[in-house]
Amino acid sequence: MPRIKLLQGSPDEIEAAYYDALARADLEALMMLWADDEEIVCIHPGAARLVGHIAIRNTWEEILARGGLHIQPRQLHATHTMTTAIHNVIEDVRHAENTMPEVHIIATNVYLKTAQGWRIVAHHASVAPGPAPAEPIAETMLH
Amino acid sequence: MPRIKLLQGSPDEIEAAYYDALARADLEALMMLWADDEEIVCIHPGAARLVGHIAIRNTWEEILARGGLHIQPRQLHATHTMTTAIHNVIEDVRHAENTMPEVHIIATNVYLKTAQGWRIVAHHASVAPGPAPAEPIAETMLH
Repeated sequence: MPRIKLLQGSPDEIEAAYYDALARADLEALMMLWADDEEIVCIHPGAARLVGHIAIRNTWEEILARGGLHIQPRQLHATHTMTTAIHNVIEDVRHAENTMPEVHIIATNVYLKTAQGWRIVAHHASVAPGPAPAEPIAETMLH
Repeated sequence: MPRIKLLQGSPDEIEAAYYDALARADLEALMMLWADDEEIVCIHPGAARLVGHIAIRNTWEEILARGGLHIQPRQLHATHTMTTAIHNVIEDVRHAENTMPEVHIIATNVYLKTAQGWRIVAHHASVAPGPAPAEPIAETMLH
């Protein structure tokens, strides 16, 4: 997909571009999706928080050096306003071994409409016990 | 503090009212701070997500039945717009035993300006390893 199109997309498109950049281990594409704001926050599952572009970039660089992360965001719950989108998703992480996961990952992704377009201002992921809960009604409605 | 004042406060005041309601184990005051929106999300540390008023209320009711939670939000990083406030804090939880904590809690709190005033739409808390990091400069500037 042409980068310019992604960068002018809706919050849903920016979110798709985010997970796409992770899958491709494309650090530059990933970092362009974040707001130009030193108060941006990124929290990886079970980790301390990272604040600002340098800390966030450095950590993603380390993670993506090991290869792409194949994550399917599912079961979206969203609150949208004209200038804000607050998304909460279950991050379905595809592992090499196809075992029943004993934990699942929850992520809150917050997007603001900036002068440059919709951008990520916060990504907060955490580990929850057990497999991801089923949400049959929401799945049917949203996907 | 009179409830009406808190309910018309700024995001910072709503956040203060939130932690105050937890300390007093005041479920009604706590739930009044949430947006009137079934997409509101609450994630307790290490737990699965809760979506909507009923699930969030029921879980807080169970937690607060054991007594108030004395939490001091520290090291605020915030992004504010006219209608949105995204706060990230370290939740300093006061335990009975004054031991050096082996973990700390990070929370993302998102507030929207609704017709009723500023309200919480998302609370995402997670556990991070080690004691809370020191942020001397931010501490000096913000507190």
